[in-house]
Amino acid sequence: MKVLVTGGVRSGKSRHAESLLADAPIVTYVAPGPTADSDPDWVARIAAHRARRPASWTTLETRDLTAALGVAGPVLVDCLGTWLAALLDARDLWDASAKTVTATVDALLDEVVGTLALRDDVVLVTNEVGLGVVPTHRSGRLFRDLLGLVNQRLATACDEVHLVVAGRVLRL
Amino acid sequence: MKVLVTGGVRSGKSRHAESLLADAPIVTYVAPGPTADSDPDWVARIAAHRARRPASWTTLETRDLTAALGVAGPVLVDCLGTWLAALLDARDLWDASAKTVTATVDALLDEVVGTLALRDDVVLVTNEVGLGVVPTHRSGRLFRDLLGLVNQRLATACDEVHLVVAGRVLRL
Amino acid sequence: MKVLVTGGVRSGKSRHAESLLADAPIVTYVAPGPTADSDPDWVARIAAHRARRPASWTTLETRDLTAALGVAGPVLVDCLGTWLAALLDARDLWDASAKTVTATVDALLDEVVGTLALRDDVVLVTNEVGLGVVPTHRSGRLFRDLLGLVNQRLATACDEVHLVVAGRVLRL
Repeated sequence: MKVLVTGGVRSGKSRHAESLLADAPIVTYVAPGPTADSDPDWVARIAAHRARRPASWTTLETRDLTAALGVAGPVLVDCLGTWLAALLDARDLWDASAKTVTATVDALLDEVVGTLALRDDVVLVTNEVGLGVVPTHRSGRLFRDLLGLVNQRLATACDEVHLVVAGRVLRL
Repeated sequence: MKVLVTGGVRSGKSRHAESLLADAPIVTYVAPGPTADSDPDWVARIAAHRARRPASWTTLETRDLTAALGVAGPVLVDCLGTWLAALLDARDLWDASAKTVTATVDALLDEVVGTLALRDDVVLVTNEVGLGVVPTHRSGRLFRDLLGLVNQRLATACDEVHLVVAGRVLRL
Repeated sequence: MKVLVTGGVRSGKSRHAESLLADAPIVTYVAPGPTADSDPDWVARIAAHRARRPASWTTLETRDLTAALGVAGPVLVDCLGTWLAALLDARDLWDASAKTVTATVDALLDEVVGTLALRDDVVLVTNEVGLGVVPTHRSGRLFRDLLGLVNQRLATACDEVHLVVAGRVLRL
């Protein structure tokens, strides 16, 4: 089974995603974002997530989703928002035109979707960020448009989409 | 059938709304927002939407929703957020008191709801913008309050409300 | 029955919450936020809410949720977002570390959850604020993280969670 888990911040998405793989003895946990950060709130949150995961799980820190999905056994990616932000950072795409960035992200999604089609037991965690007013900054507008694209394309590649609200799960 | 389609940006709302009318040979597509814009990202998005629609559809660019809903045959309005913003622009209402603006929008909604009651085969696309933190600017707070009002009133006038998340449709 | 009602601004949450208690002759309505405010839009909104409630309802203005939940008969709290903001104001916690604030809120939630366990006929209204892009200000980021925590914990303590979108109710 392939599941996309979506929802707002602090909605219980990660916990739900982990519970979907609770019966798997070994899981590769993919953290696609920055591994060090100067923001103490963020460091504390990462530490709390880590403490909650079983010791038998392997952590893989990489932006290369296609490679990460190539490992054997169940994979949990948390989360696609972090992946997208790290990707835009690494390729210096925040100030590129929407057309250029969209084409780049779309091409990467082709690869990811192709890899997903060949395998099973994947849980992808993402964020919903498109339900507020138009952000004041272009970077915010760009990011929410791109993450909407990521979510739509990966939802199509998954068997189920779960929306988490206040810890409750809605199967879409 | 009258349907209100709601969701976040890039959630797949427009595509779903269009699919609801896929069997209708002729559809009037109502674009209630500005027709020219200096933002290249926006222009590109409009062009992409247009390319996706069947050639047999008619496009009507107007802020006058009541008149637009008076045409014969199926109508698709995309979207009410653009309509509201264009309305506030045209009547110079962004700096008016919440009471004044709400009364104006409410009176227009009375007309729209009255026209909707007399007809069938309408799909209205809107946005959910009230699920983020309080916007820093008053214009953002005003807009999200008013669009919430628009959505509530038009939901009551429709037979179904569809929430689109990551391309999946939830009938509310 | 204990119900948590959530949704965006102007989604119809308060109206739905009130309808859940429409058959109760006497209800204690708990307003946990500031009672006076210099923002005329806010004052007008409070007045409109008040005018809608039955005259037989009692209004209790307090930040002390545990005490408020100790009264006899049905209780409606509207809303937890206002409660959280008033709490952070009163204890001067906006600039404290995420760890400190989270611990404080968590301890208060222990009390509230304990009181909820002993009683019935409670409707709690809250907001979903975590579905937009990352807020520019730390206060916004802190608030949405904390309210996510509040919502998750109180959802667990309730029998039902209702999500309101455009006036339609989804039981999660």
